[in-house]
Amino acid sequence: MQNFQIHIPTNLVFGKDTQHQIGSLIKPFATKVLLHYGGGTVKKLGLYDDAKKSLTDAGINFVELGGVVPNPRLSLVHEGIALCKKEGVDFILAIGGGSSIDSAKAIAVGMCYDGDVWDIFEGKAQIEKALPVATILTIPAAGSEMSSSAVISNEETGRKYGMGSDLIRPVVSIVNPEYFTNLPKSQLGNGVSDIISHIFERYFTNTTNTDITDGLCESVLKTVMKNALIAAEAPTSYEAWAEIGLGGIIAHNNWLGIGRAQDWACHGMEHELSAYNDIAHGAGLAVLTPAWMKYVYKDNSKLSNMFVQFATKVMGVDGSFRDPEAIIKEGISRLQDFYKKLGLAQSLSELNIPESAFEDMAKKATGAYFGKENGIGSFKKLMWQDVVEIYKLCK
Amino acid sequence: MQNFQIHIPTNLVFGKDTQHQIGSLIKPFATKVLLHYGGGTVKKLGLYDDAKKSLTDAGINFVELGGVVPNPRLSLVHEGIALCKKEGVDFILAIGGGSSIDSAKAIAVGMCYDGDVWDIFEGKAQIEKALPVATILTIPAAGSEMSSSAVISNEETGRKYGMGSDLIRPVVSIVNPEYFTNLPKSQLGNGVSDIISHIFERYFTNTTNTDITDGLCESVLKTVMKNALIAAEAPTSYEAWAEIGLGGIIAHNNWLGIGRAQDWACHGMEHELSAYNDIAHGAGLAVLTPAWMKYVYKDNSKLSNMFVQFATKVMGVDGSFRDPEAIIKEGISRLQDFYKKLGLAQSLSELNIPESAFEDMAKKATGAYFGKENGIGSFKKLMWQDVVEIYKLCK
Repeated sequence: MQNFQIHIPTNLVFGKDTQHQIGSLIKPFATKVLLHYGGGTVKKLGLYDDAKKSLTDAGINFVELGGVVPNPRLSLVHEGIALCKKEGVDFILAIGGGSSIDSAKAIAVGMCYDGDVWDIFEGKAQIEKALPVATILTIPAAGSEMSSSAVISNEETGRKYGMGSDLIRPVVSIVNPEYFTNLPKSQLGNGVSDIISHIFERYFTNTTNTDITDGLCESVLKTVMKNALIAAEAPTSYEAWAEIGLGGIIAHNNWLGIGRAQDWACHGMEHELSAYNDIAHGAGLAVLTPAWMKYVYKDNSKLSNMFVQFATKVMGVDGSFRDPEAIIKEGISRLQDFYKKLGLAQSLSELNIPESAFEDMAKKATGAYFGKENGIGSFKKLMWQDVVEIYKLCK
Repeated sequence: MQNFQIHIPTNLVFGKDTQHQIGSLIKPFATKVLLHYGGGTVKKLGLYDDAKKSLTDAGINFVELGGVVPNPRLSLVHEGIALCKKEGVDFILAIGGGSSIDSAKAIAVGMCYDGDVWDIFEGKAQIEKALPVATILTIPAAGSEMSSSAVISNEETGRKYGMGSDLIRPVVSIVNPEYFTNLPKSQLGNGVSDIISHIFERYFTNTTNTDITDGLCESVLKTVMKNALIAAEAPTSYEAWAEIGLGGIIAHNNWLGIGRAQDWACHGMEHELSAYNDIAHGAGLAVLTPAWMKYVYKDNSKLSNMFVQFATKVMGVDGSFRDPEAIIKEGISRLQDFYKKLGLAQSLSELNIPESAFEDMAKKATGAYFGKENGIGSFKKLMWQDVVEIYKLCK
């Protein structure tokens, strides 16, 4: 086990009707709030009105900025920063999914940074301070409600980058799974794919002596997958969505990743897909992850053993250990079947990403495109040629 | 799943050599610190000197108070409060195991309460404020390094009570498992018994739809038990102790207990044993827990099913489900074998607690002794007669 540090100051309030508590929960932090959200869904859900009422009841002033889109844009972040400066906002409340929350986090950081907030996404500056952020979650997927990270797309340059710091973990997050029961099936698939990828990125590691976190990863993977299939059949099941929602939080608040090297190659490869064709992040991950597994497991026996463990302990494969490769293949095949049952695409062609784009995307993902080929991943380090091979496995 | 709230502001720093960071980590909170510890062990370990040097290097003033004993005493808490008031202390640093940390938490609360801090343990007053507390852990067991609770013994009245509030979660906790490799085998057994009991108290629940937390409980139980047996054979194994240490933190910071009713009957019954004969908390729990299981599983089929799950998923029993009672009995038997392998006592007579004491202890545990029989436990509510029967099963 590696040395680690974990610090999650988020006050998580989870369950039915919890949205009415938002005003009293953020009152100690907030003088004037930016209410930040996407489109009409939060209004249709009644959540917009509930939040406004709760803020008003708590005597908190607010301004608002809607219009967040999936793969949230830098331009709206800039707009939010300008509005907050003009209005003297000292607290950001995101209502929505990961896109609204990430956009809120970027505004919160931008409010405390003198230059362009994009500098921080590009690694040219560090996060030293941020306004406090709270969230009311409507989509379980990104895990941003309790995470230390945010991802923003720069529509001018076509780049999609993340930033990370404990300073951007929300101070309060409200998660009411009742809202999830209104989601379309495509969002179930995309969300669950993102959730389980957050676990895979932590699970596949070369760090040894990671029994506790291995077990935590395996148990959350199994439970989220089980309840995703329940929700696919019974989309209004509060209980299934509650398990998925709680799983999504734990998947990305880093309790499953402490003390172990993490990988993040699939996320890196996927960001290029989303940047190329504005697809849902989870949809891209569902295509890439089995291909990544197929490419990586062959590398050496040490890596393979972890795939045998995955197939056995997570996917329930009961094979002969004299033929570990058969166990691994069956595990990956079951994972693909799982994605299929959730209605997720099985290939890049279904996502309208042509082979002609592979080399550029691979070079961007690994840095080669920008003249600094760092590679991606840690379980197995991938250079751009590796990434092209993985994209090809997804054709 | 029940609605829940979880808020753990503790900054956890885990791993080798981390004790040297204490000064810089608490600097933002502390002007003058009380260094609070037990006996000579922290000095023998070199930890006392490391901590003093780190505080001095960070320019933090401190006074000190040693002398904490297992089942920590109210009299020392009073002494600590008086010292802190006289010296203008605004931060408490506990160095040691759960006893030192709980004593520190009680001092921190007492510093912000006008009456006698024992009022709070007796439920006559609420915790409204507390000085910040940090910890450097030397014994994995109580989980107090990231928990919201503390237990103190009043040696005048013979009562042992707990208090709880998010306000007493440490702001910083340093956990360096290197220190654990010096512990005697008795402490391994007592500590692991306490850790797994913290999970059992959360695991056995009547709340339904608790898949995620069921799985988390099962995986941490299995891993802690596996690594306890490794540490019993190889007491200096850093890696085994790191797993136990991390397991002990997760066992009691409440990530495993969210959204589900918790039981706590075994802890209640055990506190009477410790109060009667000043035995180690974990030693008492190891005797009581199998007896509690034997008494409770027979109650009805709903409860029994949870014991079948425990036997199957945690203790690895592979029996015929046409005879669930055989599966349950084998699971309990394997748990007893586990305690035995760690050198723990198997009966109350070994702990010098005679049958003549059972009725009084049972009545104290359930409140009947004080004229208010509330019972204990929630998985199955136990009245004093039930508790006597359980004690008798431990003779």
